[in-house]
Amino acid sequence: MISKNVEVCFSPFHIPLYELTKKAVVVIDVYRATSAIVAGIGSGVSKIIPVSTVDEAKAYRDKGFIAAAERKGAIVAGFELGNSPISFTEDRFKGETIVLSTSNGTKALLKATAAKEILVGAFLNQTAIVNYINQNHDAVMFLCAGWRDRFNLEDTIVAGAMAKALLEMGWHTDCDSCLASMRLHDMAQADVKHFMADASHTNRLAHLNLDEDIAYCNQVDVFDVVPYYNKKGEIIAK
Amino acid sequence: MISKNVEVCFSPFHIPLYELTKKAVVVIDVYRATSAIVAGIGSGVSKIIPVSTVDEAKAYRDKGFIAAAERKGAIVAGFELGNSPISFTEDRFKGETIVLSTSNGTKALLKATAAKEILVGAFLNQTAIVNYINQNHDAVMFLCAGWRDRFNLEDTIVAGAMAKALLEMGWHTDCDSCLASMRLHDMAQADVKHFMADASHTNRLAHLNLDEDIAYCNQVDVFDVVPYYNKKGEIIAK
Repeated sequence: MISKNVEVCFSPFHIPLYELTKKAVVVIDVYRATSAIVAGIGSGVSKIIPVSTVDEAKAYRDKGFIAAAERKGAIVAGFELGNSPISFTEDRFKGETIVLSTSNGTKALLKATAAKEILVGAFLNQTAIVNYINQNHDAVMFLCAGWRDRFNLEDTIVAGAMAKALLEMGWHTDCDSCLASMRLHDMAQADVKHFMADASHTNRLAHLNLDEDIAYCNQVDVFDVVPYYNKKGEIIAK
Repeated sequence: MISKNVEVCFSPFHIPLYELTKKAVVVIDVYRATSAIVAGIGSGVSKIIPVSTVDEAKAYRDKGFIAAAERKGAIVAGFELGNSPISFTEDRFKGETIVLSTSNGTKALLKATAAKEILVGAFLNQTAIVNYINQNHDAVMFLCAGWRDRFNLEDTIVAGAMAKALLEMGWHTDCDSCLASMRLHDMAQADVKHFMADASHTNRLAHLNLDEDIAYCNQVDVFDVVPYYNKKGEIIAK
């Protein structure tokens, strides 16, 4: 029996180096796009439609959609929502459709469309993703959204957490990025906030007072939900 | 005073994301191309000329040059040398010029030509590189050669070792790849061989019996030499 294989890709920029068609791809942008998607879908949002540009989000908004847009960590002027996961859990969004454009997360999602299936992962639904992958796939790539196409620490440790759980279930890896992710998660898991204290994201967004959001994103297994990106371009629950 | 800045780039594939003209770039392909270059230059080889293709290496060989070529870890048929660092230290090469083509290392070197200065680093000359950078530059990028354009663990921990030494000298970083490299080196340094046991390189090259070479490459500070790539396309000692 060939054992099931885990890979980690550190940035959407690296996607051309990977063959995706036989793999589930789990997109991770933990601070904060995929955490917002998981929190929203986990709290009863019906659909989230990811779009690349702010202009696309505006076009949806002008047609009456609830639209969320974030750039450089802040809500884009003229939008009622950015990518704060806490705001996605509000009761008023239950059963609604939200259109979402974010800096890195939606870009990663839209670049992975060659995959067999595209899932949305975060600490918030870590175990739900792992169990779903284990039951339904033979190969998975965790795709870190990164920051401006570069490696970032926060998405990497989420990938490492999920990869480790799969390896404990008998999956294997021959991918050094996966090994590095698991080892970085080993170091981070006792205190993610402390581990991230000198990370670039922390410094970059310090002026935005995101402490509450970041603490929310660092919670493990709040939602037993597996959001996936369907052929119509919508993210819905499995 | 603006403090001096360290970055780590995990793969030559990522180079388009970086501005190089004001930086020293240190190319690292520790198993084994840059270790071979450091060992050679440190043992009295006069020049090493890196070339991209095996055909270029053959053309030099046919003109009477000593030529080295490695692909998939093995010496290319028809060449007397591959990239074994121990072989580069032989007395017969003292004062000679060696032409070298390797899978990943020379490729990384030739992709970094926009840099202010290109240096060749390995565990073997770790402190020599760090001191030279500290005395002569304000910005450095450690460029991991990786494997087939992907991240690898071994080059990353060498970058992490050098980055840490610079930070101890007052340099700073705002680069998550640099933070990850330093943390991975923290985990690796007590026993590099053990840390690398499940890395992809170890499995990929196991059938080639490279244990002696790998142990050689894992030695820190054997040579007090700073090889650099000059405008004529040669690697010589500073």
